[in-house]
Amino acid sequence: MSTICFDYDRRSRVGLPEAVFCEGKDDASLMTLLKRFVRGSGRPVLFTRLAPERFEAAPLEIRRLYDYDPLSRTAYGDSLQPEGAVRGEVAVVTAGTSDAAVSHEAGRTLEYLGIKHRYFEDCGVAGLWRLQERLEEINACSVVICCAGLDAALASVLGGLTSRPLLCVPTSVGYGAARAGETALSAMLCSCAPGLSTFNIDNGYGAACAAARILNLGAS
Amino acid sequence: MSTICFDYDRRSRVGLPEAVFCEGKDDASLMTLLKRFVRGSGRPVLFTRLAPERFEAAPLEIRRLYDYDPLSRTAYGDSLQPEGAVRGEVAVVTAGTSDAAVSHEAGRTLEYLGIKHRYFEDCGVAGLWRLQERLEEINACSVVICCAGLDAALASVLGGLTSRPLLCVPTSVGYGAARAGETALSAMLCSCAPGLSTFNIDNGYGAACAAARILNLGAS
Amino acid sequence: MSTICFDYDRRSRVGLPEAVFCEGKDDASLMTLLKRFVRGSGRPVLFTRLAPERFEAAPLEIRRLYDYDPLSRTAYGDSLQPEGAVRGEVAVVTAGTSDAAVSHEAGRTLEYLGIKHRYFEDCGVAGLWRLQERLEEINACSVVICCAGLDAALASVLGGLTSRPLLCVPTSVGYGAARAGETALSAMLCSCAPGLSTFNIDNGYGAACAAARILNLGAS
Amino acid sequence: MSTICFDYDRRSRVGLPEAVFCEGKDDASLMTLLKRFVRGSGRPVLFTRLAPERFEAAPLEIRRLYDYDPLSRTAYGDSLQPEGAVRGEVAVVTAGTSDAAVSHEAGRTLEYLGIKHRYFEDCGVAGLWRLQERLEEINACSVVICCAGLDAALASVLGGLTSRPLLCVPTSVGYGAARAGETALSAMLCSCAPGLSTFNIDNGYGAACAAARILNLGAS
Amino acid sequence: MSTICFDYDRRSRVGLPEAVFCEGKDDASLMTLLKRFVRGSGRPVLFTRLAPERFEAAPLEIRRLYDYDPLSRTAYGDSLQPEGAVRGEVAVVTAGTSDAAVSHEAGRTLEYLGIKHRYFEDCGVAGLWRLQERLEEINACSVVICCAGLDAALASVLGGLTSRPLLCVPTSVGYGAARAGETALSAMLCSCAPGLSTFNIDNGYGAACAAARILNLGAS
Amino acid sequence: MSTICFDYDRRSRVGLPEAVFCEGKDDASLMTLLKRFVRGSGRPVLFTRLAPERFEAAPLEIRRLYDYDPLSRTAYGDSLQPEGAVRGEVAVVTAGTSDAAVSHEAGRTLEYLGIKHRYFEDCGVAGLWRLQERLEEINACSVVICCAGLDAALASVLGGLTSRPLLCVPTSVGYGAARAGETALSAMLCSCAPGLSTFNIDNGYGAACAAARILNLGAS
Amino acid sequence: MSTICFDYDRRSRVGLPEAVFCEGKDDASLMTLLKRFVRGSGRPVLFTRLAPERFEAAPLEIRRLYDYDPLSRTAYGDSLQPEGAVRGEVAVVTAGTSDAAVSHEAGRTLEYLGIKHRYFEDCGVAGLWRLQERLEEINACSVVICCAGLDAALASVLGGLTSRPLLCVPTSVGYGAARAGETALSAMLCSCAPGLSTFNIDNGYGAACAAARILNLGAS
Amino acid sequence: MSTICFDYDRRSRVGLPEAVFCEGKDDASLMTLLKRFVRGSGRPVLFTRLAPERFEAAPLEIRRLYDYDPLSRTAYGDSLQPEGAVRGEVAVVTAGTSDAAVSHEAGRTLEYLGIKHRYFEDCGVAGLWRLQERLEEINACSVVICCAGLDAALASVLGGLTSRPLLCVPTSVGYGAARAGETALSAMLCSCAPGLSTFNIDNGYGAACAAARILNLGAS
Repeated sequence: MSTICFDYDRRSRVGLPEAVFCEGKDDASLMTLLKRFVRGSGRPVLFTRLAPERFEAAPLEIRRLYDYDPLSRTAYGDSLQPEGAVRGEVAVVTAGTSDAAVSHEAGRTLEYLGIKHRYFEDCGVAGLWRLQERLEEINACSVVICCAGLDAALASVLGGLTSRPLLCVPTSVGYGAARAGETALSAMLCSCAPGLSTFNIDNGYGAACAAARILNLGAS
Repeated sequence: MSTICFDYDRRSRVGLPEAVFCEGKDDASLMTLLKRFVRGSGRPVLFTRLAPERFEAAPLEIRRLYDYDPLSRTAYGDSLQPEGAVRGEVAVVTAGTSDAAVSHEAGRTLEYLGIKHRYFEDCGVAGLWRLQERLEEINACSVVICCAGLDAALASVLGGLTSRPLLCVPTSVGYGAARAGETALSAMLCSCAPGLSTFNIDNGYGAACAAARILNLGAS
Repeated sequence: MSTICFDYDRRSRVGLPEAVFCEGKDDASLMTLLKRFVRGSGRPVLFTRLAPERFEAAPLEIRRLYDYDPLSRTAYGDSLQPEGAVRGEVAVVTAGTSDAAVSHEAGRTLEYLGIKHRYFEDCGVAGLWRLQERLEEINACSVVICCAGLDAALASVLGGLTSRPLLCVPTSVGYGAARAGETALSAMLCSCAPGLSTFNIDNGYGAACAAARILNLGAS
Repeated sequence: MSTICFDYDRRSRVGLPEAVFCEGKDDASLMTLLKRFVRGSGRPVLFTRLAPERFEAAPLEIRRLYDYDPLSRTAYGDSLQPEGAVRGEVAVVTAGTSDAAVSHEAGRTLEYLGIKHRYFEDCGVAGLWRLQERLEEINACSVVICCAGLDAALASVLGGLTSRPLLCVPTSVGYGAARAGETALSAMLCSCAPGLSTFNIDNGYGAACAAARILNLGAS
Repeated sequence: MSTICFDYDRRSRVGLPEAVFCEGKDDASLMTLLKRFVRGSGRPVLFTRLAPERFEAAPLEIRRLYDYDPLSRTAYGDSLQPEGAVRGEVAVVTAGTSDAAVSHEAGRTLEYLGIKHRYFEDCGVAGLWRLQERLEEINACSVVICCAGLDAALASVLGGLTSRPLLCVPTSVGYGAARAGETALSAMLCSCAPGLSTFNIDNGYGAACAAARILNLGAS
Repeated sequence: MSTICFDYDRRSRVGLPEAVFCEGKDDASLMTLLKRFVRGSGRPVLFTRLAPERFEAAPLEIRRLYDYDPLSRTAYGDSLQPEGAVRGEVAVVTAGTSDAAVSHEAGRTLEYLGIKHRYFEDCGVAGLWRLQERLEEINACSVVICCAGLDAALASVLGGLTSRPLLCVPTSVGYGAARAGETALSAMLCSCAPGLSTFNIDNGYGAACAAARILNLGAS
Repeated sequence: MSTICFDYDRRSRVGLPEAVFCEGKDDASLMTLLKRFVRGSGRPVLFTRLAPERFEAAPLEIRRLYDYDPLSRTAYGDSLQPEGAVRGEVAVVTAGTSDAAVSHEAGRTLEYLGIKHRYFEDCGVAGLWRLQERLEEINACSVVICCAGLDAALASVLGGLTSRPLLCVPTSVGYGAARAGETALSAMLCSCAPGLSTFNIDNGYGAACAAARILNLGAS
Repeated sequence: MSTICFDYDRRSRVGLPEAVFCEGKDDASLMTLLKRFVRGSGRPVLFTRLAPERFEAAPLEIRRLYDYDPLSRTAYGDSLQPEGAVRGEVAVVTAGTSDAAVSHEAGRTLEYLGIKHRYFEDCGVAGLWRLQERLEEINACSVVICCAGLDAALASVLGGLTSRPLLCVPTSVGYGAARAGETALSAMLCSCAPGLSTFNIDNGYGAACAAARILNLGAS
């Protein structure tokens, strides 16, 4: 096991605390961290990419001090109290059911950060009416996160229908030419709708943090 | 100059005559071919990717025996008389002005093959109304060719709005993550709209030939 | 589990009902969908990429209300009754035995859509006589689907021997430079035979839908 | 020349007017557009990727009705009057002198959109003091745009030093493993600093539009 | 100019003399080499990739001591006298006219090495009869070189029709998914016809040297 | 299970019988083929890529009618009797121990084809003396097969030390920048040693067939 | 099992003994090598990429003659006695906890080579203070090894803060655009800090050997 | 023109002054920098990638205050005086004549840094004797820089013959599968010779800086 040097100071610098990305951590390091940040520790830390089987490997007395969600593979002991009054809500829009793991990673991160959000699921453009029916509600939010795989056409369509900051997360849904999310990523990057920003494949956490950076502007 | 062995017999086998792809041909070979297939030669041949400066290099008495279009870079002496009565028209839909070279290659090939077509230009989904306004007219055609670059979101949207055979041509429009048409190609290949078929980047000629294969079904 | 918003309306718009791509769906969502679309539900839905072990996980009373095929990994409760009288048959041609999972996905989709088809297997061009012997029968069909992996040379050869719409599906057969179907995909896209259309790697479903779009032209 | 269908309506939908990307447009189309949107036309339109030699090809009486900047290759006749009072300023930070074409595309777009901005140039992390000296001024802005090529290490460092929305634009600076900006793009996408958003290679225009989407939140 | 250390000894070791690949050489080095290996120098050396404009830059008294061919971009002063009596002839088969630069590089190298060869041009499989008509003559040769671009389907078809050593050279003909010869290269590498060997893109020289290695077996 | 159409005729056309590539075949098809080509069936067929666990799944009475080798994952019932007297032997040279699965696939194929061969293992160029010590023996063979992974430097070094036909097989040995054999493949293709021919990654079978094509020349 | 030809002579030529890379070796070969190089054999050999389950498969009497470390997956019987007095120490710096497997492979190799080293873990630049606090200690070492994944920004920052030879090892940490270490590799290669050298992805062993080459200079 | 913030302080931190990479700089910025760092300015700065035509564009009175070399495309006014007495010489070894631009960039950088070096050119492994003849002289140097393109086999061979720090620079020499230096880069990264370090494609400057970092160790 290697030594761990935690960046406790991050929140004061960037407005967001350090999180723990669990994939690739060895078991001993992960357990040390889970023990350190249980509910009541006074240090709100979010664990991402925490697979159910790895969480189950922790002792029950640790596990019950965490709020764990298997679909998004996230856990936290304490959540944050927003420093100022964060105004606005985040719309989390997805193209299809298979994008749920990613959109819920975004939603759970927002929840942990103390930011309101709503899900708009199954809005893929092959059936445009599904998006159009919910457009007004989406535009009532301050920030929009869009999760889509395959050709990610939803991003361009949404980009032409909302004036909100639009944060696009490609998902690794699909096969063959979908190339594990690379096509969705490239498609989002070169959308002709203006001002779309893009995140790493499956990075719901990152989009939620970017939403927090935006909403914190109004709060401070 | 190398010897040339022309496949005069192709039309009887596949319903489409051989065409001449001009890029990569040396000047001597190209001139031989241009001389051979002038108007009135009795052999209708289509020249594609014939750059204006290469066409200009031919003597005037050759050039005036050709119908040449610089936007699509196509030329032919004689065009085809359809063997049966081809029913139906082809809609050629484009996302943006920059896709015109490709969509016109498709249109010119159809013209040469004796098939009716209509252009629907600038229908990019960042302004959905432009497509929706013309949807009825598009659906009045029998086959739809869709040319789009960047993220090619138009293909998915169209695929959810028409029941016609939808032939998708990615274009090399864009920069960076557009990767010279590779992103549009991959996006079209993994669209979630069902039954879209895809062609090589910038291959308007191919899509027109596929439309001919489809419309010839009804003709025979 | 995320909420599901099904596009029941798709058939009236594009002539094809929504299908369920099972890979990447979480277990709870998949089971909900399987329960909803059993035989007799009045809603014919096709499930693709449904692995045997996932289908086996459903209770027997659900499973016996489905027609399931493990080679193609497809299932449906009710199949479609074609709206008009669909004329014509589809030839499903494969290069080798290893392409069968893909060609049967195409065949099963056609069956579900109420369209006749015939298999022509093991027609790889390393033994040209196998294709030539069956060429007349292939050309008696209205549409040809060609499934091939490796260098997909079959597509070009077929493209020079038939005038029918030729729908090419690259398969992920092979190793090394076959690159999980990428080479077959690229080869089909840049075939010099005119008017070949291409689909995503292993996407037999998509080619069948495209065949339906073509044959529906004659039906309406 | 193809027909042009302009999306005049875009501003009311997405808060940003349509822009003209000049690369890939044929000369005739470009000239038509330049004539249409001169100063005083009442239609503020931004031209991007307008190379000096193409702009010089326009007649003088057109050119003098444009504000043209050769470094950023941008032009506009009229600029926008912000609808509400946009609060906040944008910091445009670059790693090296070679990133100036991109950062100035961002700056010029902001100018055209009526948004204040400041440049912070040559802040590459190989000499960290250059960034640290200017950090306080950067954090006094509301939104930060970071343009960097090569390994784009500046993005991660900045991401750990500011709580502002951080919009990252990879530039195509470099050779070999820089791969025309692909490495910078990938590096920005997988930065471990939380909540960085990324744009297409060299897309200063896109980052400026995203900044406008953010600042418009406070304005409305 | 850098110093040059020529491998005069190569022929005794590998049966083939050193050649000069001219691309990427600076002008001074190239001129030094051209002067050194003129006709009558007693050192037969082949220059490849020698563009016409670079050859023209040499003084006339040098140029007339070379046999130069602009299509293949090759030059040599003296050619080789085969050491033993080389038995057998090489068939150089091409798919299309655009492959001629590569096939003639192979042919010219064979000529320089003192090996007989015959060209079989325009044998692309989209018109199979062109190959079948000439198959008997091809099989009368001892070794077959096959040059093809795009999807290189000719290689697989030939591989199933000849028992001769079959040396496959992908060419950089085509656009889009042809990817400058990469698709042809990959297709040749994963052909299902047994025992095809492959060379670098456009490397007619290499295939000719391999043919010499094979035919020298019989000579020694 | 799909139908199987075997190319029994291949040997008369190309001098090599059809082989069965077992990966990707479904179990039922594989078992049918194993039953058909047991020892004494009069049809010598080689099975490649036959994993031990799949071979073990066959009933014992089938298995004992096969000569199976787990390192090379090959099996055959009957082997071939060479038609003429094949002169010459094949040297199979490898860079390291990890290349053995590939080199033995080549060796086993030669054995099955009735061609003599010798192994020269662990000749990697990081210890040049290992190759130099055995060079004379290698050059006493008629054809050389070289199997190497990583940077495949052995191919270039051997290419400068032998005049024999040199058949290069890249292996998928290594990690990271070795990219599962892609680097070795590319390195072999662009070796500066003249006349090296290359095969697909891990394709020992293909190199053995090419050696047979060469040695059959002398036999006929 | 293939024969093994060990390069015992390597240390006298390159100052470093041969090592055994265990991945891809078949079980029989690995066991032979483990038996040969136990403690006391007089032949110090390092085994790398030796997974715990493979080491556990060796009999206990072998295993207890090895110093095995599961985090770095390395084992050795005897370690080296440096030939001269090696002056200087190596700093092994990592960006995050997930890089520990690689940094410890470097550390263990140094230990085996008889070279002193110190670990500096969790110095990622998203929290710059962690690096700055330890910079003085790092600069007190003679050579610096930097292990980082994702965007590897640590390499550029360190490169601007130390004058020591800086050996950069990209790690395969991350997902999506991290592309299994490819992004970190490319980022390190094109860092604008001068004179950074780079190693294969996850190749801690290689960096340690390079450090030895440098420190041996002072020793001899 | 953008503002320029020069890192004058770099030498004291990293032992190497800032250099100016000229590609991608606009003309005005380049001229400003050339004027600032002429001979006698007291600020020794190296200009790299300075194409002859760009240098010629400077006024004569500037140019004659520079030492410019067109082969390496480098210029400097003043060169450095080494701070301590740098012991040792650098061997710059190249595979072929076409690698000279890169090796001379390394050599010129060393000259500017006040470090002795010797060229060993045309040592490609297709003629091993050329390397072996000069091996003793190479090993008499303290550090070895190896520049090679294509398959870069020279790196592995040298790595097995010298104990010196070996700094490998891939060059963009070659075509097709050489992929503009990518193959050489990957090959060097995965060489099985231990402890080779690698630099960006064509980055002779970087290797020279790394050599300086090593030799400065002995100097301080």
